[in-house]
Amino acid sequence: MPMERRSLALAAAATLAAPALIRQATAQGAPPAAVQQAPGFYKFKVGGLVATVLQDGLARRPSLLQTGVRNAEPSAVEAALRHSLMPTTHFMNPFNVTALDTGRGLVLFDTGNGRESGPETGMLAANMRAAGLDPAAVTQVIMTHFHPDHIGGLALNDGTAVFPNAEIAVGEREWAYWTDAGEESRAPEGRRPVFALVRRRFAPYANRIRQIGDGVELAPGVRAIATYGHSPGHITYQIADGSDVLLVLGDLSSRPEFNLRHPNWHLAVDQDPQMAEATRRRIFDRAATDRVRCIGYHWPFPSNGYVVKEGDGYRLVPADWSGQV
Amino acid sequence: MPMERRSLALAAAATLAAPALIRQATAQGAPPAAVQQAPGFYKFKVGGLVATVLQDGLARRPSLLQTGVRNAEPSAVEAALRHSLMPTTHFMNPFNVTALDTGRGLVLFDTGNGRESGPETGMLAANMRAAGLDPAAVTQVIMTHFHPDHIGGLALNDGTAVFPNAEIAVGEREWAYWTDAGEESRAPEGRRPVFALVRRRFAPYANRIRQIGDGVELAPGVRAIATYGHSPGHITYQIADGSDVLLVLGDLSSRPEFNLRHPNWHLAVDQDPQMAEATRRRIFDRAATDRVRCIGYHWPFPSNGYVVKEGDGYRLVPADWSGQV
Repeated sequence: MPMERRSLALAAAATLAAPALIRQATAQGAPPAAVQQAPGFYKFKVGGLVATVLQDGLARRPSLLQTGVRNAEPSAVEAALRHSLMPTTHFMNPFNVTALDTGRGLVLFDTGNGRESGPETGMLAANMRAAGLDPAAVTQVIMTHFHPDHIGGLALNDGTAVFPNAEIAVGEREWAYWTDAGEESRAPEGRRPVFALVRRRFAPYANRIRQIGDGVELAPGVRAIATYGHSPGHITYQIADGSDVLLVLGDLSSRPEFNLRHPNWHLAVDQDPQMAEATRRRIFDRAATDRVRCIGYHWPFPSNGYVVKEGDGYRLVPADWSGQV
Repeated sequence: MPMERRSLALAAAATLAAPALIRQATAQGAPPAAVQQAPGFYKFKVGGLVATVLQDGLARRPSLLQTGVRNAEPSAVEAALRHSLMPTTHFMNPFNVTALDTGRGLVLFDTGNGRESGPETGMLAANMRAAGLDPAAVTQVIMTHFHPDHIGGLALNDGTAVFPNAEIAVGEREWAYWTDAGEESRAPEGRRPVFALVRRRFAPYANRIRQIGDGVELAPGVRAIATYGHSPGHITYQIADGSDVLLVLGDLSSRPEFNLRHPNWHLAVDQDPQMAEATRRRIFDRAATDRVRCIGYHWPFPSNGYVVKEGDGYRLVPADWSGQV
């Protein structure tokens, strides 16, 4: 069918030659002014429990070629980005919060960037409402760690609590680090504002903060797993009901193309990159061996699937989208 | 942190030992009776045009180990399935229809399995409504081919047209084949009911069927590309606006794990497997070279992304889900 190749070329040529004509035709028909995207939530079951992935946004961020990978040559990073069809000028960073209806209450893992964080993020509240979840019904907010894109949504800039009826569970090591004046004074310049943000965002919850350690069971079937490295007290959560298990990873990996595929990459966002790499490999090895469903905070929505060992890293196998929960 | 590995094991053991306790706790809290999934639609722009992927369903189908791959050993097929974390006892087949607002009218590519096709499929109409698209507003239904999961949604079993105001565009070779009594009598037993279904589903549109050939422009920027093989007159559609191009592939590939990764696999669903393979490679080579966004009818929802050449086949790079169109 040589005709076909020719028709493709002709179509492309015609399009290039007469874009005005096509635009005119489009304008005549008056397409809808505002196009409404589907709401950014996705539900699935873990045993008898219902988990909901909630999109907080997808935001343009500086390329790894600008922020740098501590232990890889820019040429190698660039080759890896091109292999994954990633742009080299920037990347799009997805943010995804997880909710869990435990039957006793509504639990939220992290809170997104916050409603006032700009046009690309802060969609958590809207997507919760679309999913039939009321922020006022949240009984427990469980934090993986305190980086701004995770704690931002706890409160508004004026100090209003977004989850007025929730207890906030935090890793004890994470809390100790970010509330320590000595750590703040020793921290690199760029990290200091985060200490101030931690104070502001947690202030409305002063009497409702619960510090937890490794292995603590926060709700029936919800257990903390210490995964230090990305931040000093980073915690991953295991949700189990019957034989079904889900891991809410937090920032155990950034985008899959970065350090799921390249677990050895030491990114600028990892506070202790050596520890972050060891932790990442330990958890992903287990997730691959036991075929545990995972939610990655920075995996593209709906942000859940399974990992397979491949080469020195891992491959993400996204779970199929099902219209039925 | 040996503690952590231990706590994982303990958690698993606890879960296995006391599932009744957990179920009881869940029951006490009275979780929502019916859990509503997010609607199955996803919108994105092609230049100034808006495309909408619409999920018709996700249905359990016999494994390739039962239906067979004509030119591959079962052991090789099984190894490939396991590599992709696919089950070997069955597979889940996604069905996804594409809509395009051309500015002059609303175009639909294929129609899904039909509203009466069982509990796992037939969600097209509901998802159209969720996406703000009215079946009565469809001006043109454009068919890739006539297999039952593509034409089923044209009409109800009682003969009611689902798209009362639409013209139906069909490939001339596809029409010729499925309306030929000789072909029907020569067809394998299992394929004969499809001839009857074609008669029933197209009957309500008798005066509104437009036969098209390779290269025909159906709407501004929408062009037919003959991609024969999967069926005798299978057609893929190219949508172009400005420099943006989208290919609505139809069944150029089934699930990506099948013949995107293994373009050489000759599946039972391909009527002329040799031609289907050649066609597939030609289009995917071009899609990979030109980095053209594609929608695969049987790719997991939201069913769109880019293909990269890898080994003897192709790798799918799903497009990121964006909350903004």
